[in-house]
Amino acid sequence: MIRVGVLGASGYMGGEALRILLRHPEAELIWATSRTEQKAEMVHRNLYEAGVHFIHPDKITPVDVVFAALPTGNIMELAPDMLADGTKVIDLGSDFRLKDIEQWNRVYGKTHSQPSLVAEAVYGIPELHREQLKETSIVANPGCFSSAAILGFAPLVNEGLVDSKKLVVDGLSGTAGAGAETDTSIHHPEIGNNIVPYNVVGHRHTFEMEQELGFLTDDPVQVHFTSHYVPITRGILAVGHGFLQSDVSRNDLLEIYRNFYDGEYFVKVYDLPRDPNAPWQHRPYPWVNAVSGTNFCHIGLDVDEERGRVVIFSVLDSVGKGGALAGVQNMNVLFGLDERTGLDFFGMHPY
Amino acid sequence: MIRVGVLGASGYMGGEALRILLRHPEAELIWATSRTEQKAEMVHRNLYEAGVHFIHPDKITPVDVVFAALPTGNIMELAPDMLADGTKVIDLGSDFRLKDIEQWNRVYGKTHSQPSLVAEAVYGIPELHREQLKETSIVANPGCFSSAAILGFAPLVNEGLVDSKKLVVDGLSGTAGAGAETDTSIHHPEIGNNIVPYNVVGHRHTFEMEQELGFLTDDPVQVHFTSHYVPITRGILAVGHGFLQSDVSRNDLLEIYRNFYDGEYFVKVYDLPRDPNAPWQHRPYPWVNAVSGTNFCHIGLDVDEERGRVVIFSVLDSVGKGGALAGVQNMNVLFGLDERTGLDFFGMHPY
Amino acid sequence: MIRVGVLGASGYMGGEALRILLRHPEAELIWATSRTEQKAEMVHRNLYEAGVHFIHPDKITPVDVVFAALPTGNIMELAPDMLADGTKVIDLGSDFRLKDIEQWNRVYGKTHSQPSLVAEAVYGIPELHREQLKETSIVANPGCFSSAAILGFAPLVNEGLVDSKKLVVDGLSGTAGAGAETDTSIHHPEIGNNIVPYNVVGHRHTFEMEQELGFLTDDPVQVHFTSHYVPITRGILAVGHGFLQSDVSRNDLLEIYRNFYDGEYFVKVYDLPRDPNAPWQHRPYPWVNAVSGTNFCHIGLDVDEERGRVVIFSVLDSVGKGGALAGVQNMNVLFGLDERTGLDFFGMHPY
Amino acid sequence: MIRVGVLGASGYMGGEALRILLRHPEAELIWATSRTEQKAEMVHRNLYEAGVHFIHPDKITPVDVVFAALPTGNIMELAPDMLADGTKVIDLGSDFRLKDIEQWNRVYGKTHSQPSLVAEAVYGIPELHREQLKETSIVANPGCFSSAAILGFAPLVNEGLVDSKKLVVDGLSGTAGAGAETDTSIHHPEIGNNIVPYNVVGHRHTFEMEQELGFLTDDPVQVHFTSHYVPITRGILAVGHGFLQSDVSRNDLLEIYRNFYDGEYFVKVYDLPRDPNAPWQHRPYPWVNAVSGTNFCHIGLDVDEERGRVVIFSVLDSVGKGGALAGVQNMNVLFGLDERTGLDFFGMHPY
Repeated sequence: MIRVGVLGASGYMGGEALRILLRHPEAELIWATSRTEQKAEMVHRNLYEAGVHFIHPDKITPVDVVFAALPTGNIMELAPDMLADGTKVIDLGSDFRLKDIEQWNRVYGKTHSQPSLVAEAVYGIPELHREQLKETSIVANPGCFSSAAILGFAPLVNEGLVDSKKLVVDGLSGTAGAGAETDTSIHHPEIGNNIVPYNVVGHRHTFEMEQELGFLTDDPVQVHFTSHYVPITRGILAVGHGFLQSDVSRNDLLEIYRNFYDGEYFVKVYDLPRDPNAPWQHRPYPWVNAVSGTNFCHIGLDVDEERGRVVIFSVLDSVGKGGALAGVQNMNVLFGLDERTGLDFFGMHPY
Repeated sequence: MIRVGVLGASGYMGGEALRILLRHPEAELIWATSRTEQKAEMVHRNLYEAGVHFIHPDKITPVDVVFAALPTGNIMELAPDMLADGTKVIDLGSDFRLKDIEQWNRVYGKTHSQPSLVAEAVYGIPELHREQLKETSIVANPGCFSSAAILGFAPLVNEGLVDSKKLVVDGLSGTAGAGAETDTSIHHPEIGNNIVPYNVVGHRHTFEMEQELGFLTDDPVQVHFTSHYVPITRGILAVGHGFLQSDVSRNDLLEIYRNFYDGEYFVKVYDLPRDPNAPWQHRPYPWVNAVSGTNFCHIGLDVDEERGRVVIFSVLDSVGKGGALAGVQNMNVLFGLDERTGLDFFGMHPY
Repeated sequence: MIRVGVLGASGYMGGEALRILLRHPEAELIWATSRTEQKAEMVHRNLYEAGVHFIHPDKITPVDVVFAALPTGNIMELAPDMLADGTKVIDLGSDFRLKDIEQWNRVYGKTHSQPSLVAEAVYGIPELHREQLKETSIVANPGCFSSAAILGFAPLVNEGLVDSKKLVVDGLSGTAGAGAETDTSIHHPEIGNNIVPYNVVGHRHTFEMEQELGFLTDDPVQVHFTSHYVPITRGILAVGHGFLQSDVSRNDLLEIYRNFYDGEYFVKVYDLPRDPNAPWQHRPYPWVNAVSGTNFCHIGLDVDEERGRVVIFSVLDSVGKGGALAGVQNMNVLFGLDERTGLDFFGMHPY
Repeated sequence: MIRVGVLGASGYMGGEALRILLRHPEAELIWATSRTEQKAEMVHRNLYEAGVHFIHPDKITPVDVVFAALPTGNIMELAPDMLADGTKVIDLGSDFRLKDIEQWNRVYGKTHSQPSLVAEAVYGIPELHREQLKETSIVANPGCFSSAAILGFAPLVNEGLVDSKKLVVDGLSGTAGAGAETDTSIHHPEIGNNIVPYNVVGHRHTFEMEQELGFLTDDPVQVHFTSHYVPITRGILAVGHGFLQSDVSRNDLLEIYRNFYDGEYFVKVYDLPRDPNAPWQHRPYPWVNAVSGTNFCHIGLDVDEERGRVVIFSVLDSVGKGGALAGVQNMNVLFGLDERTGLDFFGMHPY
């Protein structure tokens, strides 16, 4: 059994890690931390009588792997000792995501104290970095929008099919993405019938997208990303627009995507039969509620042949495949398990 | 492995059975029927590439157990042959729920053709009928509101603590309870900011509540039940009001409830520490979103000592513990498995 | 023109008063207060460029009428001076709602400093107290649930048709009722798919209901009230249950209600033709979204003849007819205007 | 008084016209048609006891102006006779929106029978075509997304500031935009926690956007538009992305927008003070719920100076400023009234 600790378990990301780890057949939860020592159900009612009691972070003991859901800058300070003890670190936050330290310092407004760990860390998308993940002890779990946009655009950029300087992404997030702390923008009376744009330019996930898509091409990559909250609780849709550099059809692209993700269990190229006369339900684009609560990412697309544009739809759950569940998938890779272990369940219908 | 068939798999109830049965470690899905032969994901997008293809009901083959999610009156016609073949039947519908055939005929506006099967059938609440379920081959899975109200009121009625002729229940249901067929009342523009009362007197589940609570007392039982749709997708809350016949405190009642459900894994007496100064989050009543998608039922309560009233809150998912997941729990009982098999996962936070 | 001031204009109740008063043809907004002096649109985006700038409460000047949306206990201190200056006071809060001072002290956990003003104040439901309102200078605008439940039960209690000691009310409120201050219970990720019971016994509005219904009968009145938030923003539904003391039909009761509210423009007895085979849309119970944003209250009902119960549905907007708009209606009465002035617009469809 | 008729009053667009026209001080509703002759409240509960009874379209009588909310192709057949009778026609549908008949035929899959009326018709955005509107008798009221995107991009395109061949628009619509007919995509259980892409390439409104923006520049214009339903009932947000052709700051652009819309009452350039440390509520982008139910359009923007992109946020209500209320504004222009007549009310907060 893998002995696991969760740092910062009272937030949504840490709580989601608990939900899965408590039923993971190869993992054992040793501790979960919170500044307030109390039963987990005091904040996560879904864990009522699950037997989890938060401990103060000062009281942690050695484990095989730590999931860190901490404010930016915290885990980088703790990681060196943990790694020295043989503990693997899966950072659900942003301390190790950007390879360019100067950029990280600028984007996060802090000075990174552990550049060497950044070099060791592997960006936690197994579909792109599986082999490196097997060799590392430190995982930089991606941002939620980053996961969606990178998985959505990767095959296109990899093939050089679109103008990589003009990748446009509108991100639509459920409010879980805003976290557990209350804020007027996420106050129900304000957002219940609303759409709230935020971080509309310069969103920090932009740099992850540019970094990871940049690894797939020699061309310069610019992502034009804008994010919004919509009144759903979980799940995000990244809508990507690219300007095609040559004539390709929807079917051509779907084939390219299927090949790129061939053999991947958690990333599915979504393509229900397309019949303009069929009921809407059968329309071939992915729906975010089908993957909410899961580790799946569904990707669909279409082409405006008249105007030379491709539109990509990439859906996942911000605390699922875009967060803690991807973290568990990464743990499975790190420990040589089947990647599906503990994650092999379907979404709900309806959700 | 238990060989399973699902009749009527294109609706929400049948689809939910599929979701769980496909990952049940002791069950194998042999077939799932629908009048339209197509891939399951054409209606249940969560099952994308799950490998399920609906067959026409004419093509079914013998299995160990059938889950029936059919319109009223259908499974009663098919059940005798199935039972004769040694197939157990779990009716997710209403054909076998009411023991009083005259009442059934009146409530459903049909003539029941299989009164002897009604006598054989066991009402599928293991917490009340576990021993009989072990002996039967035919299960009448309860209505969603019935499950919630019966579990919520059972300890009170069992102890004779309230006026059993004046049990008031307001049922609040997510729209999944209305089923997959479109209707103006469930059209999003109509219900997105609305509350829709329906079946406000004489709801069919009333009779199940009266029947099952009546088994627990010699006094006459009358349930005054009114149902409403609220704009959540899954989950129901049954709010029950009872007039106390003697002075009991909230703590007394909680103790009675804990004893009544002692040892039950799926029914939890919900009682977070009650502190009027604590944030609302810590208030001690159950929240329906903590059990959505699960087989859990959380029950909480409070007492108005000044006016002699107890109020009960019973939450569950109408297609979970109030539907297909309770059906799977019943299957587990019928086949001698641990009741948690295939059902031992937590709800989500947030949901 | 009536010169108007609004005390506490940054909350939802005060903001709603502004929305209407700014377009009221017989009123002129002189000032609106907030502790933060800023443009109104900094909190009420609907008033973008409406030209309202909040002033600090220390800077108010004499006006003809003040709307007070202040924390409990504040307006009672300010009112004597205002009244002495000839300013009428419409309290949208709770300082003057309960005639029994001892009860008020107990319910609000404070000591009331102005019992004589309580005696002068008129409870602001014109449909019940129109003549007294015409004579007073101080209005106790009712609580939102109180308005709904009192209007819903008044004809029944007035006629002595139900057991007045066993009036059960489940109140379902949109989140606007919780106010503008953030709280975990109203955080969108927590309530987006949830129903949150709160103040489940002893809700302060209970006492208003008992007081006002008590004026209509010589029998003792007990209201058994429980409140919940549902994920809609505006509007409340009060579901009332009463045990009938004699046989009356739904049609009898509708007739009694129509007579009771004969000539009332803002309270409508709701009764679409009832046809069990008609689409749900035509079912005869009121929908809260039809009155959201308005000063209307729609009341419907049905009777369970088998069990001797009547169920009442009373819908209104908690900041509309259950709040600031009723306040404007009261202002119209106080100043001898047509009650519809400034309030004569319809709700929306869809909402 | 202007004598008004509404053709197709049982849908959402026709119902919204009724709501406003019934209280328009200079208009009198003479008739409203529906294939089913019944009281308006049978479909529009907000109009309970408003005294409107639908008549069959065969029974209409001459009026001064007709609002047409009919399926594509219907009003073009009726308009010639109406115009000959001196009746003005405001088409809330799409019969007269595209000046290029060949394009119309291709986009709508029909053959237009009245090209000469298309030439006479004026596209109903007063902010762009006020003078022509004063002279015409036939108005082509714009599509909802078209209104939002055109108003949002017009100043930019007019000034030649962006690459007009790469205008990207993501449209997010409330479900009212889907109309009153039920469909699985808008069934509450399906969309309550979902985002539904539809008409993702080739949406018909694209051509209106290209036509109207094309009038403002000599450069070729291409709009890359994709639409989605989000689970709000009313209101749309058009998010526009443009690639800047020169260095301009956010403040420069806001100034250009303010000048472009100088003197316009219903189009507001939205710009709350921008302070990165301010609560989110004060962030300077428009929120759709502030204009829902109104004739306002709020437009905000920001610039990614590092990547040379401008992002535009344009919000309005699809049946308000993007539909029937814009129709009433157009009526006011046609009849020489103040444009605000009947439309001068604020949105709600909260909504």
